[in-house]
Amino acid sequence: MKASEFREVFQNNTETAGFEGMGDVMAIIEEVRQNKDAALRQYTEKFDGRSPASFQVPAEHLEESYNALPEAEKQALEKIRERIESYQKTIRYQNRDDGEFKYVYHPLEKVGVYVPGGTALYPSSVLMTVVPALVAGVDEIHVVTPTFEENNITFAALHICGVKNVYTVGGAHAIAALAYGTESIPKVDKIVGPGNYYVALAKRLLFGEVGIDMIAGPSEILIYIDSDVNVDAIVYDIFAQSEHDANARTFLLSENQEIIDTIKSRINMLIDSQPRVEIIKKSLENNHYAVVDSREQLLELINHIAPEHVSIQHKDSEMIIRNIKYAGAVFEGYYSPEAIGDYAAGPSHVLPTDRTGRFSHGLNVNDFLTSHAVISLEESTFDDIAEPAMAVARREQLDAHYQSLKIRTE
Amino acid sequence: MKASEFREVFQNNTETAGFEGMGDVMAIIEEVRQNKDAALRQYTEKFDGRSPASFQVPAEHLEESYNALPEAEKQALEKIRERIESYQKTIRYQNRDDGEFKYVYHPLEKVGVYVPGGTALYPSSVLMTVVPALVAGVDEIHVVTPTFEENNITFAALHICGVKNVYTVGGAHAIAALAYGTESIPKVDKIVGPGNYYVALAKRLLFGEVGIDMIAGPSEILIYIDSDVNVDAIVYDIFAQSEHDANARTFLLSENQEIIDTIKSRINMLIDSQPRVEIIKKSLENNHYAVVDSREQLLELINHIAPEHVSIQHKDSEMIIRNIKYAGAVFEGYYSPEAIGDYAAGPSHVLPTDRTGRFSHGLNVNDFLTSHAVISLEESTFDDIAEPAMAVARREQLDAHYQSLKIRTE
Repeated sequence: MKASEFREVFQNNTETAGFEGMGDVMAIIEEVRQNKDAALRQYTEKFDGRSPASFQVPAEHLEESYNALPEAEKQALEKIRERIESYQKTIRYQNRDDGEFKYVYHPLEKVGVYVPGGTALYPSSVLMTVVPALVAGVDEIHVVTPTFEENNITFAALHICGVKNVYTVGGAHAIAALAYGTESIPKVDKIVGPGNYYVALAKRLLFGEVGIDMIAGPSEILIYIDSDVNVDAIVYDIFAQSEHDANARTFLLSENQEIIDTIKSRINMLIDSQPRVEIIKKSLENNHYAVVDSREQLLELINHIAPEHVSIQHKDSEMIIRNIKYAGAVFEGYYSPEAIGDYAAGPSHVLPTDRTGRFSHGLNVNDFLTSHAVISLEESTFDDIAEPAMAVARREQLDAHYQSLKIRTE
Repeated sequence: MKASEFREVFQNNTETAGFEGMGDVMAIIEEVRQNKDAALRQYTEKFDGRSPASFQVPAEHLEESYNALPEAEKQALEKIRERIESYQKTIRYQNRDDGEFKYVYHPLEKVGVYVPGGTALYPSSVLMTVVPALVAGVDEIHVVTPTFEENNITFAALHICGVKNVYTVGGAHAIAALAYGTESIPKVDKIVGPGNYYVALAKRLLFGEVGIDMIAGPSEILIYIDSDVNVDAIVYDIFAQSEHDANARTFLLSENQEIIDTIKSRINMLIDSQPRVEIIKKSLENNHYAVVDSREQLLELINHIAPEHVSIQHKDSEMIIRNIKYAGAVFEGYYSPEAIGDYAAGPSHVLPTDRTGRFSHGLNVNDFLTSHAVISLEESTFDDIAEPAMAVARREQLDAHYQSLKIRTE
C-alpha cells in the first residue's frame, strides 16, 4: 500500500459511524433514571449474570486486594503513581490575574471514573485516570467497574490512590447511574474513562447532562522509522500495539522499503512464540506498511489521521515532531517506546483515537478542573466601551440591555 | 422563598431532562449523512419553507450587508471585535517545554459555527464565537445560519470577521452537515455555538464524532446586592436578563429584605414601559427573590447552581468572589453589569447554563486549540522507570509490552 492511500483507509473508518444500538442505550438510561438501583440490579443480573448484595465495595476488600500484592508490584504501582502525579502537577493550569480580568480554575466536586472489568484487569488504567483527578484536587471520586472478585488488582490500584467509593457495576447502566444518581451511587459532575461500545454510546447521549471526557475506540499507533533502527525493538513495539485487542492497528512508515521488509519478515519469525499470538495475528491484519515519498507527505498523513500514538524513531525526529499538529501523544526516539507511555512516563494513556485527536486531547489533570472569568471593570474602562455596547444593544432591539448600560454612564 | 429552597428548584430543573425528540433528530442526522445536500434541501423546505438555490452565501451579500450599516454601527462592531480579540489573546494557552516532556497546542483546522437566525439577529453572538476562533488561528471557519435575507446584520458581523464560508441552513440538519460533510458544506473538526432544542440534541448525538463546545439552555443570572445599590440599575439588570426570552430567569439575593422589596415594587412601576414587556412579564415568573441568612449559605447556593452569570454588587464582593468555585462568568461591581459582558467586556457571552458550569466553561480561544504531549525520554530516565513498568506489564499479561521495554534495557 502506498502512503497516499492511507487517507482513504481512514476516511472509510470514520464514515462507518452510525447510531446502531443507540435506541437500546436510550432505553437503559431512561430506566435507570426512573428506577435507579432497581434498574441497576436488573441490568447487572442480565448482562453480567451477577446479583451483588450491595454495589459498594467494602473498604476491607480494597485494602485486602492491596495487601495480597507481591512487594515488588506494590512498589512498582507506587512508583508509577508518583511519576504520574509529578508530571500532572507540572501541566496543571494556574489562575490568572490581569487586573480587571481574572481567569480562575477550580477542581470538580464529584467525578465518576469508569474502569473496564472482566477477565483482563488493568491497574495502569486506574492510575492513569484517578491520579490526574487527585492532582486536580477533586473532592469525591466514584469508581464503577464490572469487577466481581473480592480481591483483585483493580481494587489494589484504587486502594493505592486512596479511593473509597467503588461500585461493582458496569455498562451503559453504570454511566446512567453516575449521570443521574441512584440510591447507592451519587450523581457526579463528570464521567471519564474508557469502556465498551455501549458505554461510549451512553457517554454520547449524556454529554451536556454531565461532563464527558471523550469517546475512545480501538487503539492505534503510527511508527516512523529510519533504516538504522533496532529491528527487534520495532517488532515488539508492533506486537505491543497488536496484543491490546483484535481491532488495534499499526501504521509502519519509512522512507526505506528494505527496513520495512526486514521488519515484516522478523514479525513472521517471532509471532508464533508470542503468548497472545491469536489476538496479535488478528490485529496484524489491520496493519499497514508503507514507504512515504516525502517528508511533506508524512506530515500531511499524520496530521490527517491524528493517530492516538505517534512514535518517531528516526534521526530527523526533532524536525518532524515540530511539524506534527494533531496526535494523541508523540513519542520521540528509542527510549520513548509507546509501552513506557502506557505505564510510567507520566502523561495519561487515555488518548483520543480514530482521528478525534484533531479536536480532543489525552486525559489530564486539567480535565478535572472547570474555569470561569471574573470581570471587574473600572469606571473608566466601562465608559470607554459602553458606547459601542449600547449601539449594538439598540440594533439588537434589547432595550433593557441598553438601559442597564445607559444608567451607569450617567 | 427562602434561599435554602433554591436547591430544590434547581434539582427539579435538571432532573426533567430526557430524550424527547431524540429519535427524530437521529433520523434527520442519518438522512443527512447518507443523502447530504438533497437531505438538507428537503429539511430546509420543510422547516424553514425556503429553497435556496445554493446554501453558500455569495461573497457580495456579506460585503453589501456590511456596507449597508450606519457608520456608528460599523465602528461599534469593530471596536467590540478588537476588545474580544485583545482579551482572548491574553488567555490563550502557550506551549510548554520541560525537557523530556513538551506539551503543545495547535489551532483546529476546520471549525463550524452555528449562528441562530430567524427574526432576531444577534451580531454580538457572531463576534463572541468567531473572534475566539480567529485568535486561536483556525484555518477555516464555516458558519451555518437559517438567515435568508440577502442583507442582514449577521452577514455584516461575519464580514467584519473576514469569514467567507457562510451557509443559509439551520436546525439539526445543519449540525449533521458540519459533522459529516455534504457536497456544499465540508466536514469540520468541531462545532460551536448555541441553537434551539433540536440543535442541542444533534450536538449531543454527534459528540465524539466531531468536537462539540457545550449544550446550553435558557439564560440565567444570580445577582447579589447590598442595600446601597442604585435601585434602577438593578431593575434594568433584571429586565435585561428577562428580555432574552420567556424561559430566562433571575435569582436576586440579599441579606436585606427591604432592598429586595424596593426593587420588586420598582419593577412593577417600570415594567409596562418596557418595549419587550410581554417577554419580560413571562420570564419574571421564573424569578426568585430571597434573603440569604449567611455568607456560607450564599456561597453554597452559588456553587451548587453554578449560575451562567453571577453579578456581585455588594461591598464585600472581593471576599465573596474569592470563594466562588462554579459559575459561567462572574461580574463584580457597579461598572460590570452583565450587559457589558454580553457585548464588549472581552470574555465570550457563550456560557454554560443550568448547572453545567460545574463541569464546563464559557467558550474561549482555547476551545479552538487541541493539544498533545511529546515524550522524549533520556536513556537514564528510561532505565529508572522501565523496571516498574515491566512489573505491571507482566501483571497485566501484556508480554509484548514487557518485551518492548526489556529490549531497551539491554
